[in-house]
Amino acid sequence: METLKRLGVFDSGLGGLTVLNEICKYNTGLDVVYFGDTARVPYGSRTVETINRYAEQDVRFLLSEGVEAILIACGTVSTNCLPALKRTFSLPIVGVIDAGCEAALAATKTNRIGVIGTRATVNSRAYERRIRELRPEVRTWGVECPLFVPLIENGFAPDDPITVMTVERYLSAFRDTGVDTIIMGCTHYPFLTETLERFMPEVTFINVGKALSRRLTASFRMPEEKTPNRVSYFVSDEDTGFLEIARRYLDAVRADNVQKVNIEQF
Amino acid sequence: METLKRLGVFDSGLGGLTVLNEICKYNTGLDVVYFGDTARVPYGSRTVETINRYAEQDVRFLLSEGVEAILIACGTVSTNCLPALKRTFSLPIVGVIDAGCEAALAATKTNRIGVIGTRATVNSRAYERRIRELRPEVRTWGVECPLFVPLIENGFAPDDPITVMTVERYLSAFRDTGVDTIIMGCTHYPFLTETLERFMPEVTFINVGKALSRRLTASFRMPEEKTPNRVSYFVSDEDTGFLEIARRYLDAVRADNVQKVNIEQF
Repeated sequence: METLKRLGVFDSGLGGLTVLNEICKYNTGLDVVYFGDTARVPYGSRTVETINRYAEQDVRFLLSEGVEAILIACGTVSTNCLPALKRTFSLPIVGVIDAGCEAALAATKTNRIGVIGTRATVNSRAYERRIRELRPEVRTWGVECPLFVPLIENGFAPDDPITVMTVERYLSAFRDTGVDTIIMGCTHYPFLTETLERFMPEVTFINVGKALSRRLTASFRMPEEKTPNRVSYFVSDEDTGFLEIARRYLDAVRADNVQKVNIEQF
Repeated sequence: METLKRLGVFDSGLGGLTVLNEICKYNTGLDVVYFGDTARVPYGSRTVETINRYAEQDVRFLLSEGVEAILIACGTVSTNCLPALKRTFSLPIVGVIDAGCEAALAATKTNRIGVIGTRATVNSRAYERRIRELRPEVRTWGVECPLFVPLIENGFAPDDPITVMTVERYLSAFRDTGVDTIIMGCTHYPFLTETLERFMPEVTFINVGKALSRRLTASFRMPEEKTPNRVSYFVSDEDTGFLEIARRYLDAVRADNVQKVNIEQF
């Protein structure tokens, strides 16, 4: 196994910065190229055909930047496009599903697991299928939470009454299911962790970015240098609003010096 | 003046159906081609450069469908791109600004007018500039309401407590301004008219689609045939969720037989 030197990470927007943040916490000596497709966000409400086309362009852009492996920090792409991307491209591509499912299975005691995500992620049932493959006796429930991303991207704080009421609305669907573990199947959702935990304190919420960055070593040989990670940021459209939010919430990542890409050329 | 037979209408999504609805209420004998850019919605949070590129593609698609004039049913495009589009293309192109401003000026008694819209619409200050040109003594206030479109597109009813709380949050910015008229500068917002009016019953909310369709006769000679209007629908991505919402709310428009367009080819 060659040591991974240059890793590509992409997301439909800048929500994947939560994943990047976790990677940078748990690793050193990496060159990371981050691409956020801010011109075409959100992917979650698009058709699978469109999401596939976008995801291929995202991978081709990262290849042009010389990355040796790609981490898909987008729940929607991971759930809908990963098998097709692996067939099309020869470099290693890792999504958030496996790590998220394994972390959830390690956490559950009731064998009842919930999944929250965008419409496309929940409808794909990708987490639920993978959980059933790994442990068939586990029961799963998926709940679409389509307003969470707009709330976060438009600056509604996690403790804003509108955010809290929306969290309560969506999570009420889990009442009477007995789930003790819920996978946050969208990389934006870690921004809401405290609000989610306050409404369902008995539940373990799985941050798939954290789960993924912890098990990167299972997929790749990571650098041994203890030098700081170097991150290059690219977006397809400027979105200073979200960068501001990112700076406020993320600790292990500096998001500045962002370059713009015309993603439709790839 | 030639009689207008074939009119093109476009919006970033399907919110422009509220404008189409008004056109179909007040006119007959028209062929209308409606395009909703559902693959790239929302425009409101993109940069002006990106919105300009999208709007040019939208116009080129409608031209390929043989329309003789174009009505921009999108507040974001009307406010940001209309002068550039008029320079680039020779057919008549009409936006929502002028009609909205004239209706607001006819309604106000206090000479204090509010504008609500997406971030791009409000930041463009296009309504406010036009109002000042027409009547310099009028004072204006613009307020961004970026969560309204996601609420509507994700099926939150106008009387849902989360919708009501969001309306109250955004509209509270008009407290102490003395506005008696507010322009709904986004074609989705007519879905929320009752909720807006309930919170500010003393205010007249201007539906720019209604204002525009009433004064189409000022820009074009309209057909005299009393035959029903014929509408062809095109979208850049399927979005059955919003079509369902449209069917529930609109009365003068039937939204079925929708065809798909690859808008990036134009």
